[in-house]
Amino acid sequence: MRIAFQGEPGAYSEAAALRFSDHADLLPCEAFEDVFAAVASGKATHGILPVENSIGGTIHRNYDLLLENDLPIVGEVTLPITHNLMALPGTSLKEVRRILSHPQALAQCERFLRGMSGVSVEATYDTAGSAKLVKEHKLTDAAAIASERAAKVFGLEILRAEIQDYSDNITRFLLISRTGETGDHVDKTSVVFSLPNEPGSLFKALSVFALRDIDLTKIESRPIRGRPWEYLFYVDIPIGRHDLRCARALVHLAEFARSMRTLGSYPSWKSRESAVARQGA
Amino acid sequence: MRIAFQGEPGAYSEAAALRFSDHADLLPCEAFEDVFAAVASGKATHGILPVENSIGGTIHRNYDLLLENDLPIVGEVTLPITHNLMALPGTSLKEVRRILSHPQALAQCERFLRGMSGVSVEATYDTAGSAKLVKEHKLTDAAAIASERAAKVFGLEILRAEIQDYSDNITRFLLISRTGETGDHVDKTSVVFSLPNEPGSLFKALSVFALRDIDLTKIESRPIRGRPWEYLFYVDIPIGRHDLRCARALVHLAEFARSMRTLGSYPSWKSRESAVARQGA
Repeated sequence: MRIAFQGEPGAYSEAAALRFSDHADLLPCEAFEDVFAAVASGKATHGILPVENSIGGTIHRNYDLLLENDLPIVGEVTLPITHNLMALPGTSLKEVRRILSHPQALAQCERFLRGMSGVSVEATYDTAGSAKLVKEHKLTDAAAIASERAAKVFGLEILRAEIQDYSDNITRFLLISRTGETGDHVDKTSVVFSLPNEPGSLFKALSVFALRDIDLTKIESRPIRGRPWEYLFYVDIPIGRHDLRCARALVHLAEFARSMRTLGSYPSWKSRESAVARQGA
Repeated sequence: MRIAFQGEPGAYSEAAALRFSDHADLLPCEAFEDVFAAVASGKATHGILPVENSIGGTIHRNYDLLLENDLPIVGEVTLPITHNLMALPGTSLKEVRRILSHPQALAQCERFLRGMSGVSVEATYDTAGSAKLVKEHKLTDAAAIASERAAKVFGLEILRAEIQDYSDNITRFLLISRTGETGDHVDKTSVVFSLPNEPGSLFKALSVFALRDIDLTKIESRPIRGRPWEYLFYVDIPIGRHDLRCARALVHLAEFARSMRTLGSYPSWKSRESAVARQGA
C-alpha cells in the first residue's frame, strides 16, 4: 500500500494516511491534482484527500476533483487537528521573530498570533514544509506552526502546543484508489446527484432512502457553477452498495435525479477504528 | 444605516455592505465577535458576515455566532471575489520582493504565488490591511493582495488583476440587526434545527416543506460538537415567515425537531437586486 498525499512529510494529510494504515508507504505530492495523477498512473495505490473540516466546512474543490476523476473512494479517516509552534532546540519563545506556516493554519491560529507582538508572520505552501525550512536553513529566530509529527520528523522542539483558536477542530479525509472496495466491512456510501429544479424534488429523492429506513450521515446542497438555481447534493449513507437496500435505493434515485454518481462504497472510520482495535488486541 | 463589518476599509465585507446599500455608514471591526457586539450595543444598526464561499464551503464559525447571539438575519448579499496584486504607484512587478495578504486570500491565489520566484509571502490580518500597510509604510518593494476597492481606498496601482486560482469564487454574506425585517419583500427564511437520531427523521422534517410545495435553496448537515451521531441542519427556504405556508411549516417542523431556531426572514439577494435596479431606473 502506497498512499499519495498533498504536502511534505509531517503534513496533516500524512498523519491521516498513517492513521489509516501505519505500515503504508507514503508519497508526498505538491498539489491535490498530483494526488489524483499519482493514483491514476499507478505511482501510488491510494490517495488521501481532506474533504471537510469542523470549523471551515466542506472543501468543495476536492469534491470537484472526485467528480472530474474516476477514482472511487475506498475509505475514510477523521483526524483531530492540533497546531503547535515549534523551533530549533535551544530557541526560546522570546527569540522568535518570524512565524511560518500554511495560510489555513495561520488563519486557524489567529487569536494566538495576535497575542505575539514584534513578530512577522510568513505564509508558506505547507505546515510541515515550514518546519523543514526552519530545520534546513537553521533559522534560530523563526518558528513554524505544524503538527506534532512534523516536529518529530524535523527534530524541532514544541514551544507551545495546541495553539489553534478552536479546540474542536476535526478534519475528515477520504481515501481513493483505482478499483473500488470489495471487503466485508463496507458500511458507508457517498453519492452525488443533481435534481430537476422543481418544488419537492429533494423530498422525492430522499424518499428512496427513507422508504428503506436508510439514514443520512451527511447531506449538503451546493449551487452548480454557471447554472443558477440548480444544485448538486452530496449525500453519505451508512450502508454499503452491495447491500440490497442500498442497490435498490440508488436505482430508485436514478429515476428522479437529473444526474447521479456513486463516489464510492467503503468502511466507515468508525468501523475501521474498531477493526484496527480488534487486530491490536 | 450603519453597518459593522470585520476588517479594514476596503475589505471584501465592506464591499458586500456597500453592495447592499451604497449610502450606508460603515464601522470596521477587528473580529466577527465584535461585529455582533457592535450591533447588540447599538453602535451599528446592522452587521455583515460572510457565511459561505463557492470554493471553501460554509463558514461554520459564523453560524455558531448566529446561534449564540440573538440578532436576526435581515438581508443577504452575494459578492464575486476577485483578488488583485497592488503596489505603490511606480513599483513594477519585477521590484516586488514581498507579497502581503490575509491567509485565506493567499490560499486562494496559491497557483499565482507559486509562479513568483524570489518573493517572500507574508500573512496579515486583513486583505485591505495589507494594502494600508504598503501605503502607510511606503513599502516600495512590497505588494498586497486585496480587492479593487482597497486599491482605490489606499491609492495603490493594480499590477495584476484577478489572480485567484478559480474564477468562480463567490461569497454569500448575511446582514444582521437587532430587530427582524418586516418589509414587503421578505421572501427567504433561514432555519436551524436538530433531530432525534432515528432513520427517516430528516425525511419527516423535510415533509413539512414538501407537503406545502416549499422548495429548499440550501440544506446542510453538520455534526453537533461533543454529541456524536447528532446533527444540526441548516435550511433556507424561498418564502417569508409571514407567509401562512411558512408559518404552518415551521409549527409543523417544531413537532419533529429536538431543537429549532428561525435565524431570520429577509429579502433574498435576487429580489433585492431587482428592487435596487427598479429604484435606479
